[in-house]
Amino acid sequence: MSGTQQGTSIEVLDTTLRDGAQGEGITFSVQDKLAVVRALDELGVAWIEAGNPGSNPKDMEFFRLAGSLKLENVKLCAFGSTRKKGLKTPEDPQVLSLLRAETGGVVIFGKTWDLHVTEVLRAEPEENIAMIAETVAFAKQKGRTVIYDAEHFFDGFAANRDYALATIKAAAEAGADRVVLCDTNGGTFPDAVAEGVKAVSAALGLALEGDQNTGSQAAGLLLGIHAHNDADMASANTVAAVRAGCRHVQGTLVGFGERCGNTSLAALIPSLEIKLGFRCLPEGKLEQISNLTRKVAEIANVAVPDSLPYVGAHAFAHKAGMHADGILKISRSFEHIDPALVGNDRHFLMSEAGGRSAIAERVKKIDPAITKDHPVTAALASKLKNMEAQGWQFEGADGSFELLVRRELGRYKPLFRIEAYRVVSEHPTGETIACAHAWVKVLVDGQHEIAAAEGDGPVNAMDGALRRALRHFYPELEQVRLSDYKVRVIDGNAATAAKVRVLIQSTDGGQTWTTVGVSEDIIDASRAALVDSIEYKLIRDIERRFKAYL
Amino acid sequence: MSGTQQGTSIEVLDTTLRDGAQGEGITFSVQDKLAVVRALDELGVAWIEAGNPGSNPKDMEFFRLAGSLKLENVKLCAFGSTRKKGLKTPEDPQVLSLLRAETGGVVIFGKTWDLHVTEVLRAEPEENIAMIAETVAFAKQKGRTVIYDAEHFFDGFAANRDYALATIKAAAEAGADRVVLCDTNGGTFPDAVAEGVKAVSAALGLALEGDQNTGSQAAGLLLGIHAHNDADMASANTVAAVRAGCRHVQGTLVGFGERCGNTSLAALIPSLEIKLGFRCLPEGKLEQISNLTRKVAEIANVAVPDSLPYVGAHAFAHKAGMHADGILKISRSFEHIDPALVGNDRHFLMSEAGGRSAIAERVKKIDPAITKDHPVTAALASKLKNMEAQGWQFEGADGSFELLVRRELGRYKPLFRIEAYRVVSEHPTGETIACAHAWVKVLVDGQHEIAAAEGDGPVNAMDGALRRALRHFYPELEQVRLSDYKVRVIDGNAATAAKVRVLIQSTDGGQTWTTVGVSEDIIDASRAALVDSIEYKLIRDIERRFKAYL
Repeated sequence: MSGTQQGTSIEVLDTTLRDGAQGEGITFSVQDKLAVVRALDELGVAWIEAGNPGSNPKDMEFFRLAGSLKLENVKLCAFGSTRKKGLKTPEDPQVLSLLRAETGGVVIFGKTWDLHVTEVLRAEPEENIAMIAETVAFAKQKGRTVIYDAEHFFDGFAANRDYALATIKAAAEAGADRVVLCDTNGGTFPDAVAEGVKAVSAALGLALEGDQNTGSQAAGLLLGIHAHNDADMASANTVAAVRAGCRHVQGTLVGFGERCGNTSLAALIPSLEIKLGFRCLPEGKLEQISNLTRKVAEIANVAVPDSLPYVGAHAFAHKAGMHADGILKISRSFEHIDPALVGNDRHFLMSEAGGRSAIAERVKKIDPAITKDHPVTAALASKLKNMEAQGWQFEGADGSFELLVRRELGRYKPLFRIEAYRVVSEHPTGETIACAHAWVKVLVDGQHEIAAAEGDGPVNAMDGALRRALRHFYPELEQVRLSDYKVRVIDGNAATAAKVRVLIQSTDGGQTWTTVGVSEDIIDASRAALVDSIEYKLIRDIERRFKAYL
Repeated sequence: MSGTQQGTSIEVLDTTLRDGAQGEGITFSVQDKLAVVRALDELGVAWIEAGNPGSNPKDMEFFRLAGSLKLENVKLCAFGSTRKKGLKTPEDPQVLSLLRAETGGVVIFGKTWDLHVTEVLRAEPEENIAMIAETVAFAKQKGRTVIYDAEHFFDGFAANRDYALATIKAAAEAGADRVVLCDTNGGTFPDAVAEGVKAVSAALGLALEGDQNTGSQAAGLLLGIHAHNDADMASANTVAAVRAGCRHVQGTLVGFGERCGNTSLAALIPSLEIKLGFRCLPEGKLEQISNLTRKVAEIANVAVPDSLPYVGAHAFAHKAGMHADGILKISRSFEHIDPALVGNDRHFLMSEAGGRSAIAERVKKIDPAITKDHPVTAALASKLKNMEAQGWQFEGADGSFELLVRRELGRYKPLFRIEAYRVVSEHPTGETIACAHAWVKVLVDGQHEIAAAEGDGPVNAMDGALRRALRHFYPELEQVRLSDYKVRVIDGNAATAAKVRVLIQSTDGGQTWTTVGVSEDIIDASRAALVDSIEYKLIRDIERRFKAYL
């Protein structure tokens, strides 16, 4: 690759929680949003665009709670538009709610395309420019880092170059810290993106070209790019913009977003870091990108597309015998990068270093004596591989993963067993019976106990019956409650006969843990995750109370 | 877009049946392959790379049957490699089976990267060149159109430019009709692709640059491009190659293929035709590309990704109220092309943000008399708001939305009623009973029917029992199958007592529709979505068959 840029920094803004949430079928609870923030902070992006407090009361509650998160790398931004036509900026409720989010940064979007100003906004071209300048200046005056998003920049630039550049200049002169060129409709091609970036940098008097670009931008204004994938060019457009001088990139980690989605940061960042020599994340974070992409997708309850570049499950899967053979002879002959660089795995090999060192890292937390080369690590790697092929996933299920490791280490003995259960859903319901009811029979230390419960649904009924049966032996289970329950269908094609993966998050008020179950039967998958959840809690308590005796 | 090429032809080769079949989870029966050929012929691509007769006996059977297909546009190619090291070409069984497929074209791939020649093939560089020249010459002598695939061209070109070009020259001088530059590992960027294409055209003495390129290529040799998506650059690389002079492009319609897939022709062809002014398909065919992409995906038993550019279900889906409003004012303000050009539809997602004008747009499809200001629109808007507050979402559920509208318009009468059901999950299971079983009692036009079924889980069991009970009255339900099933927990905090939203996608082979159900009980939510799915299908059939009487 020509012209790598050793070490030049690119600032990454993730908009999973704002533009990503515009994707069809994507909704986040406030708790989901906080979990996404923690995952992105772990990855080490610079900014998170976290919501639109002016249009969504749920977002305001999120910002209130987010203020108390301890974040290592990331800063939050609230997102909103320039002031409304005809209002004074300090009196515009939308602008005021943007500031009330009390974030370090604000993203303010404004109109660049004259067509939009006259036909959609129905404002005078001069008023639009005033709206941009005044809103940016007001947010600067309130101490915010201002990221100005030039909506429809490339369409506006093609339609009326002078006007588009005038809106950009207005934002820059009013003090914007970042000016981001947005391909809002997603139909622009890389050559037009490069041309637009160069024109803006010339108009703003920035020296961005080639290797001279670090100096002047580091001092102040950074140019940015925000691409959509409507012509399958989001990554190519972002790379073209960076090569033309942009040093701030926006996208969503998994790539979801309105219509065809945003630039997938998981598909982009490895290109920028490995192929072009830029630095987007703190040292050592790139190899976490596969895991953290799966984590964010799991929170959003969507699948990471198997074919997603770099991080997808098939990204390094080799089917052709010919290729497999080639890889065994010399891996770079059939792989464009080493999958370990992004924490992904090559698929057909029996075991490899990348996967094993990650496993060893996690096993060490339970038994510090276990290394990458310990036989238990190899056994676990092969077990995980088999289970993942059947639909299990331990990325987000720390509790079940610990139990799996304990079983492999021989440091596990069942604390109870479900001997039998029956769960019934029916309609219509009688006067004495709810729509769902269950009974469960457990065996604990040689003693049987049976209990029944009603519930709002079959899983709720089974959970109730199981806890009742166990509370006689383990009264501490009273404190435990389920704080989240997620269901994911693994193979959509088999429809209702497909496997489901159930993730259960539990809390005892202090700690929180997550467990997983997989089955063709949702009831049975839920049972597996419930059992793991209860065992994990009991083991934690035993360690705490009886460690001296063990 | 600068430099459109009015009417210049691009020859398209689809390799769904060869490279596509390398994708994980993709397998085709011989009948499937014939169905894919018919669909691609209808679309009007120039070539289909249909299989590797030397490595797969099923492929030979396919070629035997394919000979009798009446094809309008497309020609078939068989795919294989250059002769084996040390063999004489006319005695190499793989080369002979390539010819025995009796196709108009053959695709012969050869090694371009010196690393592969010495380390994987373990041949002398000169012998590899002889293998290429002799195999191409032999196939030409047998009357085939020869498409030479230069495997790993871009990696080879980067590693040893002279050797890579020498292999290409050997193929061209031996009479190859097409020389296709392959980015086999998928990690090349557009600038490197353009540079490689230009170097090859210079080495072969072709005048490809700019507008002069039609003449010399039309006479004989065409340069081609074969890209993979490992760096998310497949479309961008293909466009870069075409702009640098390639006039033959390879890909798979849906985009599946080994690892991250091949160039998706569905995402590429609209860019080449609409944005760059090339001609890839016969007149009038572009608007069939959405339907035919779904058809090929259906045959392969995979989903068209919702976010696939141009043809995906979400490619023109608008969620934010702001955008929906803007589009109704002036559509190009928020859409990069008119969706009708590719036979796709604009969708307004029915969310709180969507607003009344978006609702009216959709109601019009059912009753053209309903406007934004009609009282039914207001009633629906308020009903949607209430239902959304309870967890319903009609964004992705066109079928349930239509039923909701019909109820509001008074154009609905239940076609059946579930009088009672019981679904049981249990463990352990007896010898005569599965882990899940169900019975359902329905009432249809005054008649009762009761049926039972077992299943892999409770929903599968209920689906089976309901269909059995209804098939007596509605035999057309035999064609319906569920093609996807999704579950989302709406409020994670209430855990297993939270509400769940179930989305079911159904198909009758032709149409596809989605329905939704919400309940605290997953069984009951599934029931609601199943009932809507069946009613939607029945109403469609009634309209089709009995419209004259209505």
